Amino acid sequence: MTTTILENDLLLRALRREPVERTPIWVMRQAGRYLPEYRATRKQAGDFLTLCKTPELACEVTLQPIDRFNLDAAILFSDILTIPDAMGLGLSLNEGVGPVFARPLRDASSIKRLAVPDPEQDLGYVMDAVRTVRSALSGRVPLIGFSGSPWTLASYMVEGKGSKEFVHIKGLMFEQPTLLHELLNTVTKSVILYLSAQVQAGAQSLMLFDTWGGMLSTPAYKEFSLQYMARIVSEVKSQHPETPIVLFTKGGGGWLEAMADTGCDGLGLDWTIDMAVAKARVGDRVALQGNMDPVLMSTTAEAVQVGAKQVLSSFCQDGQNTGHVFNLGHGIQPNAKPENMTALVETVRDFCA
Amino acid sequence: MTTTILENDLLLRALRREPVERTPIWVMRQAGRYLPEYRATRKQAGDFLTLCKTPELACEVTLQPIDRFNLDAAILFSDILTIPDAMGLGLSLNEGVGPVFARPLRDASSIKRLAVPDPEQDLGYVMDAVRTVRSALSGRVPLIGFSGSPWTLASYMVEGKGSKEFVHIKGLMFEQPTLLHELLNTVTKSVILYLSAQVQAGAQSLMLFDTWGGMLSTPAYKEFSLQYMARIVSEVKSQHPETPIVLFTKGGGGWLEAMADTGCDGLGLDWTIDMAVAKARVGDRVALQGNMDPVLMSTTAEAVQVGAKQVLSSFCQDGQNTGHVFNLGHGIQPNAKPENMTALVETVRDFCA
Repeated sequence: MTTTILENDLLLRALRREPVERTPIWVMRQAGRYLPEYRATRKQAGDFLTLCKTPELACEVTLQPIDRFNLDAAILFSDILTIPDAMGLGLSLNEGVGPVFARPLRDASSIKRLAVPDPEQDLGYVMDAVRTVRSALSGRVPLIGFSGSPWTLASYMVEGKGSKEFVHIKGLMFEQPTLLHELLNTVTKSVILYLSAQVQAGAQSLMLFDTWGGMLSTPAYKEFSLQYMARIVSEVKSQHPETPIVLFTKGGGGWLEAMADTGCDGLGLDWTIDMAVAKARVGDRVALQGNMDPVLMSTTAEAVQVGAKQVLSSFCQDGQNTGHVFNLGHGIQPNAKPENMTALVETVRDFCA
Repeated sequence: MTTTILENDLLLRALRREPVERTPIWVMRQAGRYLPEYRATRKQAGDFLTLCKTPELACEVTLQPIDRFNLDAAILFSDILTIPDAMGLGLSLNEGVGPVFARPLRDASSIKRLAVPDPEQDLGYVMDAVRTVRSALSGRVPLIGFSGSPWTLASYMVEGKGSKEFVHIKGLMFEQPTLLHELLNTVTKSVILYLSAQVQAGAQSLMLFDTWGGMLSTPAYKEFSLQYMARIVSEVKSQHPETPIVLFTKGGGGWLEAMADTGCDGLGLDWTIDMAVAKARVGDRVALQGNMDPVLMSTTAEAVQVGAKQVLSSFCQDGQNTGHVFNLGHGIQPNAKPENMTALVETVRDFCA
């Protein structure tokens, strides 16, 4: 990786809690189905996994929202389940159904048999996509790499698909915690290698998506999700101290202090927690990323403006915009209107604390 | 309603934060599909709504878990959507599908046309069920009446069914808030009459289920859900000051202080928040009800014992068990094992702070 001087490093400065001229903005799932150009490329690819696994196409969709909206960061177009896919669980992603694994983990032997994937060998298409995007960006904005959290990956691996109750993974947690820790250990080692390789390939910031940590009780969250994210933060930061890491636990508003204790640089917040309350709780130990309700993006531009200003003002109640990265509280939905993204970006750009 | 001296008034004392010999326990959806005797009565009734609408059968299933497990409270067997059903929206409840309304509210005229149901006239079967259960209990344990919260009822009425994103109701909220307030007003008036009538018919404690309030941002929660629950608490308590009211917002762990400010007697907690943390935040202003992860009920008796003790100890960290009502953090699931309920009840009974 060669060091490029960034034309726009607002994201990195915000994540370091350094002063910024204005609040940077990017949006989770910004390269997605709400964009006609994305749907066209996706159609060309045939299916979602082919799109992920073809670096040129992944690069194309990664850059689409940057070109259209002038966002302040690009996030690698990929899926959170690439690691279990590389472990041989047989991933398929079908619209309307969500991810499904052909071979979910249901016994000790299938868990003990799992090997840690080598990122360049077994997930080379991801590293190629990072290099391709990084080169295509040529320093316009930083590139964010990411992974699912160990708990979230393990949930999909054990359930075999999305879930509401998480009966299988929680069954393992309550009845065979040692075996689950073994699985989480293997996944954690894999995530550490995977994120470090993304940085080596060119990612300038990292994010851990803990989509399902919020389904846990407080002690279970700390033992089965946060503990492993903390290890990832510690190991990846010891190798790449300059690369900021953001943790996002959906539904994790009750655990912000403990999340900040991991030594991460920023916390992603869903829309249910008030920015001012979050900021008061974690102080300036970490940056905060979020947190407008994504449903607003399918309403009107006026409603988007009101909603965005509410988030911005809540963060700036103390007159300080340092350490805020504007985002939605969850991924943008397929029914979002592209013109509302324009309105959103303008509102965030024009906002003065 | 005649005043009966209760043989077991632990629930009422716990909700008044009075000393108790031991922590009372009941379980949300305790009369449910995990019980073979429930499935038999349900089969006899034919379908769920007939079961709700036949007071003798509703009474039978209400008492089944009391007879089998010696729980400390009975909760009326009914559905949270009886009010919109009485308003003419055409409710059907089908296993595996969840509730569906034939005529969801999608325009101003259908909202403005809604009439407030008269409880004895339009929901007489509920009041008859309350009277039948109360008489059948003959003072063994208190009877809990309940309603869905205005926000939760309105969500179902506007979406027409369960939802993940709540695009329709949130669209109304963001684009036509005045119209949504009109709907919430009508529903709130209906809930007040409905709960008061339940008390007059014999309910000795009340609970408001706000299943979907946790899908809102903090300002939206306060304006569109909590405000209306606060009005219900205030009006029902002015009419029935002796009847405790418990508010339960699933995913509402961030708003406990504001919920306690309504003047309610207790807060229901889902399993994601730590009892000790919740208690430290609300002090002894309200009782706390909950909050074991319901998934435990489908695992082993040993795991249930560990989980139950964790909740009990968390509440009693300060050596005080005053003001705790043991419950699950959400309704018990169909795949729960009845023998685990036995283990749970025994563990709670035997626990000493």
